[in-house]
Amino acid sequence: MKIGVLTSGGDCPGLNAVIRAIGLYITENLPDAELLGIPDGYGGLIRGEFFPLKREDFADILNLGGTILGTSRQPFKQMTRPAEDGTSRLKKMVDNYRKSRLDCLFVLGGAGTHKNAALLSAEGCHVIGLPKTIDNDIYGTDMTFGFQTAVEVAVEAIDRIRTTAESHLRTMLIEVMGNKAGWLALHAGIAGGADVILLPEIPFSPDAVVEKVLRNREQGERFSLIVVAEGAFLSDEAGLKKKERQFVRKERGESTVTPHLAEILEERTGIETRATVLGYLQRGGTPSAYDRFLASRFGGEAARLCAAGHFGVTVALNGGNVVYNALSDIAGRDKPVDPKGEAVRFARDIGIFFGTK
Amino acid sequence: MKIGVLTSGGDCPGLNAVIRAIGLYITENLPDAELLGIPDGYGGLIRGEFFPLKREDFADILNLGGTILGTSRQPFKQMTRPAEDGTSRLKKMVDNYRKSRLDCLFVLGGAGTHKNAALLSAEGCHVIGLPKTIDNDIYGTDMTFGFQTAVEVAVEAIDRIRTTAESHLRTMLIEVMGNKAGWLALHAGIAGGADVILLPEIPFSPDAVVEKVLRNREQGERFSLIVVAEGAFLSDEAGLKKKERQFVRKERGESTVTPHLAEILEERTGIETRATVLGYLQRGGTPSAYDRFLASRFGGEAARLCAAGHFGVTVALNGGNVVYNALSDIAGRDKPVDPKGEAVRFARDIGIFFGTK
Amino acid sequence: MKIGVLTSGGDCPGLNAVIRAIGLYITENLPDAELLGIPDGYGGLIRGEFFPLKREDFADILNLGGTILGTSRQPFKQMTRPAEDGTSRLKKMVDNYRKSRLDCLFVLGGAGTHKNAALLSAEGCHVIGLPKTIDNDIYGTDMTFGFQTAVEVAVEAIDRIRTTAESHLRTMLIEVMGNKAGWLALHAGIAGGADVILLPEIPFSPDAVVEKVLRNREQGERFSLIVVAEGAFLSDEAGLKKKERQFVRKERGESTVTPHLAEILEERTGIETRATVLGYLQRGGTPSAYDRFLASRFGGEAARLCAAGHFGVTVALNGGNVVYNALSDIAGRDKPVDPKGEAVRFARDIGIFFGTK
Amino acid sequence: MKIGVLTSGGDCPGLNAVIRAIGLYITENLPDAELLGIPDGYGGLIRGEFFPLKREDFADILNLGGTILGTSRQPFKQMTRPAEDGTSRLKKMVDNYRKSRLDCLFVLGGAGTHKNAALLSAEGCHVIGLPKTIDNDIYGTDMTFGFQTAVEVAVEAIDRIRTTAESHLRTMLIEVMGNKAGWLALHAGIAGGADVILLPEIPFSPDAVVEKVLRNREQGERFSLIVVAEGAFLSDEAGLKKKERQFVRKERGESTVTPHLAEILEERTGIETRATVLGYLQRGGTPSAYDRFLASRFGGEAARLCAAGHFGVTVALNGGNVVYNALSDIAGRDKPVDPKGEAVRFARDIGIFFGTK
Repeated sequence: MKIGVLTSGGDCPGLNAVIRAIGLYITENLPDAELLGIPDGYGGLIRGEFFPLKREDFADILNLGGTILGTSRQPFKQMTRPAEDGTSRLKKMVDNYRKSRLDCLFVLGGAGTHKNAALLSAEGCHVIGLPKTIDNDIYGTDMTFGFQTAVEVAVEAIDRIRTTAESHLRTMLIEVMGNKAGWLALHAGIAGGADVILLPEIPFSPDAVVEKVLRNREQGERFSLIVVAEGAFLSDEAGLKKKERQFVRKERGESTVTPHLAEILEERTGIETRATVLGYLQRGGTPSAYDRFLASRFGGEAARLCAAGHFGVTVALNGGNVVYNALSDIAGRDKPVDPKGEAVRFARDIGIFFGTK
Repeated sequence: MKIGVLTSGGDCPGLNAVIRAIGLYITENLPDAELLGIPDGYGGLIRGEFFPLKREDFADILNLGGTILGTSRQPFKQMTRPAEDGTSRLKKMVDNYRKSRLDCLFVLGGAGTHKNAALLSAEGCHVIGLPKTIDNDIYGTDMTFGFQTAVEVAVEAIDRIRTTAESHLRTMLIEVMGNKAGWLALHAGIAGGADVILLPEIPFSPDAVVEKVLRNREQGERFSLIVVAEGAFLSDEAGLKKKERQFVRKERGESTVTPHLAEILEERTGIETRATVLGYLQRGGTPSAYDRFLASRFGGEAARLCAAGHFGVTVALNGGNVVYNALSDIAGRDKPVDPKGEAVRFARDIGIFFGTK
Repeated sequence: MKIGVLTSGGDCPGLNAVIRAIGLYITENLPDAELLGIPDGYGGLIRGEFFPLKREDFADILNLGGTILGTSRQPFKQMTRPAEDGTSRLKKMVDNYRKSRLDCLFVLGGAGTHKNAALLSAEGCHVIGLPKTIDNDIYGTDMTFGFQTAVEVAVEAIDRIRTTAESHLRTMLIEVMGNKAGWLALHAGIAGGADVILLPEIPFSPDAVVEKVLRNREQGERFSLIVVAEGAFLSDEAGLKKKERQFVRKERGESTVTPHLAEILEERTGIETRATVLGYLQRGGTPSAYDRFLASRFGGEAARLCAAGHFGVTVALNGGNVVYNALSDIAGRDKPVDPKGEAVRFARDIGIFFGTK
Repeated sequence: MKIGVLTSGGDCPGLNAVIRAIGLYITENLPDAELLGIPDGYGGLIRGEFFPLKREDFADILNLGGTILGTSRQPFKQMTRPAEDGTSRLKKMVDNYRKSRLDCLFVLGGAGTHKNAALLSAEGCHVIGLPKTIDNDIYGTDMTFGFQTAVEVAVEAIDRIRTTAESHLRTMLIEVMGNKAGWLALHAGIAGGADVILLPEIPFSPDAVVEKVLRNREQGERFSLIVVAEGAFLSDEAGLKKKERQFVRKERGESTVTPHLAEILEERTGIETRATVLGYLQRGGTPSAYDRFLASRFGGEAARLCAAGHFGVTVALNGGNVVYNALSDIAGRDKPVDPKGEAVRFARDIGIFFGTK
């Protein structure tokens, strides 16, 4: 039995913990199986590169950030497009899967990775997915591994920034990752004690944020904390002219709304306002204990599914239990924050503002 | 409307986050209600002490460990027993609840606290519980607040101890809290990469642990990590005489099996063996982001139940959703680790040993 | 005896630890003295605001970030300039010092704060300075409090970013604070394992950095880490036209060279390059144990000097001993990194590149 | 040129950072030299084991706890004693040094390691020492690497325990390492806000500690924190009978005074008292940025001394500068805390009690 494993898409805490759990399961339960690492995500599969993984390779990686396999991004839309030699990337991957006589391929990745995995599965490859992303936006699972570590890192940063805000009577903006889904901003904002949380799922009005900051000051608060998802954007009702809305994102090469909002807030509230973009801090480094536990269980369950011959699925957390979903059900679907859901409603109930009245 | 809040039992991360969420909910949604803090757990209620809690009291407590209310332990069995003045503690609490014209009492605590809460509720007091404990052993909820922080702290400690184990080729025992339930040992052991986990729910054989450590060495492992719950104990089949089993716990004033096991392991394996008892590290300090989020949601939900007039309940986490259970259903029940459950089975699958063959 | 204390300039870890040590010293040794807090830096002194500080105010602040007094920036050049009412800020401060019958004023701050302190001292006020700054650039002291915490925070961030660099085979730039002095970049770079460190004291050539990154790749390194002080700038020899050098800092509203360098590196090396600006993370939050110890000793020594009647001085660390320097010797002097000094030479010896051949 | 390196004695953060700096210096400046790792401390040298260290071995070890070489303890008194084969350990080491044609041997270790290093040097081996110990008790250096990390770990623990103390109105004892020297207890106690610090250098009276705790309570403090070095012991004047003093250390197999003191305090003050022994937490794990910087500089300087042909020395920190001392001057000397020195005097000035009036 030959089993391959690859990690694809952006770096994320917990990848090595999954690889280790898969490896240990196989060592303990499938002693005749051979585990092969595939370097740099789908890139390694396209090029047909494999290298053996042994028990000693798993010895010190449980708490290691990143991925010992390396990773790369392979856009979904380039998968089926024929390359110069007339063959698509997908075709090359299927060929290499067959040529190397794999019996199973573990694919660790996010939404895009799972779309590609579903393609491979549809071509007859035995694929098992594992839902990795700090964005927590994969359909069908309560939680992805890596998300909770990113929340912890973001909240440690917010704790530090809070003391500066308080000492200087400032408004502080903290931009966290989350281009399409605002889970990270939502959780980090609630756990960090934010006054305002701005999400991609809820367009915001700068005027309303200005009002909230001024109201805070009137109520005697020394400072305001605003957590901004990188994908947050202005609502139509913001009272800005079309040109102003464009300005926000294009001119000056800015890719998020944060610097613009910081300027507006300082101008209109008269309160010193500063922004910090957490950036790559949120992706790397040692996974939290939560994520090591979750990643280990996901890895163990995926290996068990492989041993049992269940393919074409991805593991998932459902109400505390590790379950699995069909890749074909997951592919192309997302999991945004529900603006009317329980978490947002609760946050509003304790006075957190989402940028719209 | 007058609302009381108390924290009872052992210190636990997240207590202040709950108090803050309750306070903010009331400030935002029940502006006419008065929130009263009750000092030092049920002790303050027995003595009839109350002090007002204001918005500014919640400003800086989200990430503060401990409890701003203070806490104490009030054993259940002493609740209904008449004191010298002929009145039981329970009676005094009910009297003070009525005298102070409370409309609702929030009680933050563990299993014992909930038993007392059920007594108060049965006497007609409007009580709402909140499940706090680093042991995660409250019936009816997937998770208690405080537990995940304790896991993170324990795993940070294990990470540090692991490097010493590796440099010195040692066997290291790490004793974590968990007298009746082994959730903390189970999660910290899996996330910390333990070779052996010993739980109160699974009596262990020292002989079998000796064998496991020797097998580890034979397989080329440089060291062994053993996570021991403080409530772990020897199985009958351990091959020890009755006297030896008694020795373990009584002589030398030792209250856990850890020092005894360390001696046995060093003697029989010939490998240097050291033990660390994590102790009060696991109880105090800043809650993790996970626990701040969970505690805030629990607090918000409890306040919403109060506003809606749902009493005699305790909030709970059920598959990612915050729900509630009747106090009368919870009281006196516990939530041990299931030796045949999914988490233990998964851990065995990746080679973790639980001390019995 | 009346003693005032103020914190001035940017937020910095350890301010509260100093205030506490001063307060405890006075409580223990000068029981008749009155300690007065002055809010928001020199601003409070200009306005003549004072509030009493009591023993209980020091109870929980040793590990608290920020400053319980609040702070503000008061540019030196505005101190002696007459305001609308014809009186300078300096004059107002001296008047308020006298009116309130202060016997001593403790001033916690950086280089600018010390210049203002020297002015007050020259006017006859009894001033004692305490060297605070995360930049470590105050003349006459081996170390300022706050610096080491900022180094620890920056290195934690670098550790996280390193795993992403390794997984993605990237070049990662990490911009740290340090506009005029590069101590933070130097220490964080060495402790974080940087390949390149760019300091305000050593103008760099982008071409040379490009070469270093390419050489790294050739030698088999998977990634390159570059730590950039915010004050780093291009050397004349960079081979850039005048216009390009201007472009770097003005166009697109960029205030540091980091984004420009990231673009150049990605273009010319063909290696994915990403930048993270640590920002306000480095200023706030709990001080490290090192800084709590140093700040406490500085506070204790400053209070001892006050009790002994030594004024017009600032405390300093000199070779492990806490000593003091005359304010008049310190004012207006700085402490840049010596490009030919031991620390830089050592770093070059182990292969760290400073951007010039 | 052949250069050996070994790490000896207890595990300590920063060992790998030193090895890396030595390795990088050699790679950059002595390209023809061969660096050989010697496993498990002097043990490997006694057995004549060597293995080559290459550039890639240093890639990921800067922030790795423990030592990639392994370590062991080799008591000084066994060095010159003839073994069964009539040859002493010292003789075997000298023989293996010559047989392997080493030109220089780097020895990383504590006081005992340095005594052995001086023996080797006296036999004509080219030895360069590096002062490693979390106890900071090596003569001739202001600071050893590893110490500051241990302080940070201990203070994090104290911060957590403080919140429990405050919530429960308890007295908490925290036992830290330090058998002969109390530097760790002194620094951790000051930085952690201890009320009482007990050192091996200052015998304490339990009666006096009882009084201090009671006085604290009278002054309105909610709790008392007591940091105890493992080597702390009772003074003659403690008012205890001879038998009681013996009891403290022998009976019940207790190896430190902590449990005994906890009992006395609880009994005589009537205040709940709990103890935590930090144990192996303090030895292992990732070094702090401070220690990585110091260890890297020590390593670089040691390698420079080797390149320059300066042997028979050990590197040291002296007032911010890295210098070196003759091994013959260091061997057999120690560096205890001076009970009348500046640090203790300052601590007394801010109200910290050392257990004697």
